[in-house]
Amino acid sequence: MNYRMVGYILLWVIKLEGLFLLLPVFIGLIYREYEQAVIFLICAAIYCVLGFIGTFFKPKNTRIFQKEGFVAVALCWIVISVFGALPFVFTGEIPNFVDALFEIVSGFTTTGSSILTDVETISHVCLFWRSFSHWLGGMGVLVFALMLLPAKDGSHMYLMKAESPGPDVSKFVPRVRDTAIILYKIYIFLTIIEIAILLFSGMHWFDTLCISFGTAGTGGFSILASGCATYTALQQWVITIFMILFGVNFSFYYFILCKKAGLALKMEEVRTYIIIILAAIAVISVNILSIYENIGEAVRHAAFQVGSIITTTGYATTDFNLWPALSKTILVVLMFVGACAGSTGGGLKVSRIVIMMRTVKREVYRTINPRRVKTVQMDGKAVSDAQRHSVSVYISAYFLVFFISFIIVSIDGFSMESNFTAVASAINNIGPGLDMVGPMGSFASYGIISKLVLTFDMLAGRLEILPMFILMSPSLWKRRS
Amino acid sequence: MNYRMVGYILLWVIKLEGLFLLLPVFIGLIYREYEQAVIFLICAAIYCVLGFIGTFFKPKNTRIFQKEGFVAVALCWIVISVFGALPFVFTGEIPNFVDALFEIVSGFTTTGSSILTDVETISHVCLFWRSFSHWLGGMGVLVFALMLLPAKDGSHMYLMKAESPGPDVSKFVPRVRDTAIILYKIYIFLTIIEIAILLFSGMHWFDTLCISFGTAGTGGFSILASGCATYTALQQWVITIFMILFGVNFSFYYFILCKKAGLALKMEEVRTYIIIILAAIAVISVNILSIYENIGEAVRHAAFQVGSIITTTGYATTDFNLWPALSKTILVVLMFVGACAGSTGGGLKVSRIVIMMRTVKREVYRTINPRRVKTVQMDGKAVSDAQRHSVSVYISAYFLVFFISFIIVSIDGFSMESNFTAVASAINNIGPGLDMVGPMGSFASYGIISKLVLTFDMLAGRLEILPMFILMSPSLWKRRS
Repeated sequence: MNYRMVGYILLWVIKLEGLFLLLPVFIGLIYREYEQAVIFLICAAIYCVLGFIGTFFKPKNTRIFQKEGFVAVALCWIVISVFGALPFVFTGEIPNFVDALFEIVSGFTTTGSSILTDVETISHVCLFWRSFSHWLGGMGVLVFALMLLPAKDGSHMYLMKAESPGPDVSKFVPRVRDTAIILYKIYIFLTIIEIAILLFSGMHWFDTLCISFGTAGTGGFSILASGCATYTALQQWVITIFMILFGVNFSFYYFILCKKAGLALKMEEVRTYIIIILAAIAVISVNILSIYENIGEAVRHAAFQVGSIITTTGYATTDFNLWPALSKTILVVLMFVGACAGSTGGGLKVSRIVIMMRTVKREVYRTINPRRVKTVQMDGKAVSDAQRHSVSVYISAYFLVFFISFIIVSIDGFSMESNFTAVASAINNIGPGLDMVGPMGSFASYGIISKLVLTFDMLAGRLEILPMFILMSPSLWKRRS
Repeated sequence: MNYRMVGYILLWVIKLEGLFLLLPVFIGLIYREYEQAVIFLICAAIYCVLGFIGTFFKPKNTRIFQKEGFVAVALCWIVISVFGALPFVFTGEIPNFVDALFEIVSGFTTTGSSILTDVETISHVCLFWRSFSHWLGGMGVLVFALMLLPAKDGSHMYLMKAESPGPDVSKFVPRVRDTAIILYKIYIFLTIIEIAILLFSGMHWFDTLCISFGTAGTGGFSILASGCATYTALQQWVITIFMILFGVNFSFYYFILCKKAGLALKMEEVRTYIIIILAAIAVISVNILSIYENIGEAVRHAAFQVGSIITTTGYATTDFNLWPALSKTILVVLMFVGACAGSTGGGLKVSRIVIMMRTVKREVYRTINPRRVKTVQMDGKAVSDAQRHSVSVYISAYFLVFFISFIIVSIDGFSMESNFTAVASAINNIGPGLDMVGPMGSFASYGIISKLVLTFDMLAGRLEILPMFILMSPSLWKRRS
């Protein structure tokens, strides 16, 4: 293993984090929260010094392979989380380190679950850092680093593969670095549009920034105790539409950019995603009609919650804990479905569900017509055996982590509905669950072990499990090559 | 498709069912329930006449293939369920046909969920038929028919494959018919031993029969309102041990019969199954210690419930709905694990879980050591790609059915815990769930659509989904070859 290069990448990311920590410092200056600003500034300085010194000499051998890619990504996410949690501890706003770690992992993994019981007592500096971590984690910290990091292009690809969600990574252009730049350009462009529209709608500029970061990364930290309930109907619709837009596979936007709208509209994953959203909104609207004043309000709340849950954002405009069983069940199932691959959203991903369904369908067809060969297709191309295999390995790993976490978290003795949805929420990077961890609840009551398990689940969910398993594998540490 | 032969098999099974319906008639004579006995006798007569006439002429072409195997098995199970439900309706003890169908499907699939709210008002004739259906369904109605049915041996194999649970069917001896005979000999022998021990322990002979049928088939219909709570501690331990014995892969007993105890003890699935059971009993015993009077009682209840749930039997000696969250969660997870393949139990099966875990482990290993080839092994033999593929197809189909059913059942508006565990209980052929459908509850309150969905889930779970999907596939009915 190329330890030197893995260490180099880690230090690069620490340097970047130090630079990003300067943004909340500006917020502190504006809101005159000098104490917090100074603490963030000191952290930023230390991380930058550490990072700049560490990356001063480039390793001779910058070549890494798949294994190093997974290890570097897993370690990076752990390192930025630990370093990102420290400012919360030092400002005293989240004095317990495990809580601070949970909160920042929830941020970077774009989960949006919080251990804070009263978010409105937190300083603007910390709120900003919390929400900005969504934006960074959404597209990927390493994908960001890829734009700047000196390494061989093949090595870039392994890092990108390990960090990007979904069964397959699309390279828009031959060079990975250029792909990363295009992705971030689209990401920044969409974020700015959302900020502009929300500002125009009369939302306060600080809310605008935090809400847009959360939408873009499909995170879901809200900065008000009421979540998104106090925003106007128009603002809620804007957020709904942008949540759904950020859950779309970014290849869709790339095709449109290249004036290949035909290809974009033919993407089966995106079409399935839209159909699922529309169907869920329709059923839930009817189901909750009697709770709200008129059909417009019911549709608005249904659309917001469906968009928020399927994209795994996790904002809420209403306490869907109080909805009837059918609507709650649909939301729980959508938690597992998740957004499109190649988006900033979590969950199993629509394309995996489609591949699963088609694999089953093909098996039925093959049994009935044993002599006819029919391949599983996606967007007109055959899904390779390797891809189908990786989908099934992923699903297996996913449910193993799920059930083991479910047992451990239940030791705390809370209700089964709370525990089940807490784990589902963590592993799918959603945010709220039901019952105790519902949209108006919090994760504060769980014990330390449960919080650590949920923290692991959030990381495993964001990195699609394999990197975390590889990091924990004894055979990684036993042998050197 | 060989329609003639599929029809012939169906009529054979109807004939068998007619003959089996004579057993409850005897019970009616003993208990002087003449009215019910006459109704069962008339049904038996009609089915026998229908069956004997229909199977008088053997089809010229008795050759069937995989497709016909699946179709015949799926249709057989539907036919015996419909014909088996009618006596309940005619006696007026379960007047609603959907309820009667639910009850008998729950019987044949060895689920043991009941729509009866007071089981003690039911006649002995009906109670016996209900429990006997567990015994028949456990090892398989078609496996029974295979011992008598005239057909080519290759055709037998397809029927056996389609009806037997687990990722792979072991043929003990070259001829399938002989394998079926060996299986039923072991099955009958173990059942008789249990009946003898329970009789010896002082249990009433009628209870002894019903409880033993339920244990052998891993069914779980109890004939008392209190479940198994009123039996003595000794009797509960006997039932616990036999539940666990019937959840073991029957290859284990075959190896012992052939004096190959070494092979038997090396079976990885059986060893994993025993380890899971012991671990679950240990954890739950500690967790529930404070609820019971002494450690002996806690261990007894823990062992009974763990044995009952992992083998998917579904008897209960206590209302585990009232247990702490950790114990309930372990039981819910065990619902999904299920018993060994090649046993009478349901669930995903221990061998599938082992293959899943090893596939994930191999993937991790392969990423770390890309140049080393390592196969997934089970009992020292490599698991073929086809087997791994079929496991992953099964898991996909399983969760698809699960989540769709979960949504539909939730329309009735009961609690999420009830709905989730009701579907888990049906698809894994367990019996009780939690909350409303807990061990002291019933499925009576669900609406007709939910009952039909759960009935489908029970059949899909027992036949491992694919046969039901094939029966519903439009491409089966479109083409003739």
